[in-house]
Amino acid sequence: MLPANRHRQLITTDPVIYGRHFDDPVPPRAVGAKLLKRNLSDLAAMGARPTAAVISLALDPRVSTRWLEQFYRGLAAAARRFSVPIVGGDVAQGDGFLGAFLTLCGEARGPRVLLRAGAHAGDWIYVTGTLGGSLLGHHWRFIPRLAEGEWLTRRREVRAMMDLSDGLAKDLPALTPAGAAPAIDGDAVPVSAAARTQARRSGRTPLSHALEDGEDYELVFVVAARADRAGFERAWRRKFSPTRLSCIGRFVPAGKRSPEAVDLAKYGGYEHLRQIAARDGI
Amino acid sequence: MLPANRHRQLITTDPVIYGRHFDDPVPPRAVGAKLLKRNLSDLAAMGARPTAAVISLALDPRVSTRWLEQFYRGLAAAARRFSVPIVGGDVAQGDGFLGAFLTLCGEARGPRVLLRAGAHAGDWIYVTGTLGGSLLGHHWRFIPRLAEGEWLTRRREVRAMMDLSDGLAKDLPALTPAGAAPAIDGDAVPVSAAARTQARRSGRTPLSHALEDGEDYELVFVVAARADRAGFERAWRRKFSPTRLSCIGRFVPAGKRSPEAVDLAKYGGYEHLRQIAARDGI
Repeated sequence: MLPANRHRQLITTDPVIYGRHFDDPVPPRAVGAKLLKRNLSDLAAMGARPTAAVISLALDPRVSTRWLEQFYRGLAAAARRFSVPIVGGDVAQGDGFLGAFLTLCGEARGPRVLLRAGAHAGDWIYVTGTLGGSLLGHHWRFIPRLAEGEWLTRRREVRAMMDLSDGLAKDLPALTPAGAAPAIDGDAVPVSAAARTQARRSGRTPLSHALEDGEDYELVFVVAARADRAGFERAWRRKFSPTRLSCIGRFVPAGKRSPEAVDLAKYGGYEHLRQIAARDGI
Repeated sequence: MLPANRHRQLITTDPVIYGRHFDDPVPPRAVGAKLLKRNLSDLAAMGARPTAAVISLALDPRVSTRWLEQFYRGLAAAARRFSVPIVGGDVAQGDGFLGAFLTLCGEARGPRVLLRAGAHAGDWIYVTGTLGGSLLGHHWRFIPRLAEGEWLTRRREVRAMMDLSDGLAKDLPALTPAGAAPAIDGDAVPVSAAARTQARRSGRTPLSHALEDGEDYELVFVVAARADRAGFERAWRRKFSPTRLSCIGRFVPAGKRSPEAVDLAKYGGYEHLRQIAARDGI
């Protein structure tokens, strides 16, 4: 039971599933923490704070008691760290399947909630942190950008925001206003050191890891065309240095993208149900 | 985004998993409706009304588009019927697995929330409806007792309540106060017609179906020892006739159960993880 609440309420749900969001090399404690953190990242993108979570597990009978204990310890430690009471749950058997489904409630403390809609042609596109390191462990080591998200919600020049879960190439269309297209400067994209390491192994470019791999859990947001960007960036650095902040481009009228800008259509991104569509021939 | 709320907030989560909570004979529309209804039954047991739901799906790639469409239609129809906005969700691939995980938020409109704790030795045990019909289809045809639950919360003589999901034999210990034991009159247990039909097929007794099979989604609640039970039952009949209401026994001091009372320890109930425990030799 939760008390009555005078703030706007938000709710989000994301799972971790064996073989999709983690595999054997990921420590079970990290899996438990990741489950909470990826939901926290959703709240961060709206500038909200968590208030309570419930968890529902589907467990293959072969899952060891030790794995489960470590998973819970990791979840509990993350819940303490981010002050999230876990107020309920359910456990069911899942033959040949191991998944944990968390639903997170939150509240918006600030004067507004930032949504994906709100950008205009001419607005600037920013990202926090660096991109492309998920395959080398960032997908479970990341820290959700809760303080940054709440601060950005209070900055009037910020018009729209989301977190990067499927990769910039796949996620950015959700922020793009009708009649516009993102013009991204490839050199301005903050490619992580891990993405460069991964590129040497994969034979892909570091930029493709940064645009396509997903699970960055960084914030991507939009700053109004006429904002005082230098002042905004100084305020960010005073508050969140050493977290990197990058202006990677802007929205331009559709069809007006300069030839130097990255053609995001050439980059994929993590596609939910892509394999289902492929098998069904959709 | 949900508005601020002046009532106490509740939250519950329950899944439907292929092979556990439904199988091929259950129409996909009924599966979608069941997912919402079993969560509504949890709220009903606290006397709360639903406010919003989120859903998270794990889909085997072989699930047909038609199955999924029918599932959603059933869920949407139930959401309209019970006035539950479905405000978000997630879809992930689940190889060899089909499960839907719903989290339901609710609010308590009345002066209190009924919990499982609150019974005393001497109190009376009541159940709504009839029990034991789940295997013949009640497990997805049931109607959650929302109006009944809210009404019972406003009756001062009712001290504790829960819904029957695992079977009376398994669920009743959660209502039983320390130092007490339930003394159940087997003849007073409202065995459903379906349980009698099922018993002819299974070779088990109708009572064992009523106590053990689970998924009744009826309310079991506790009325104070000194309450005006006749008055209470008249008020119920005025409001909820023709829904059956049965006083099936009372809580007695532990060790004082009369020999005629049902020995619930001889009856099992749906045991989450029973198969896991059996395989692991726990």
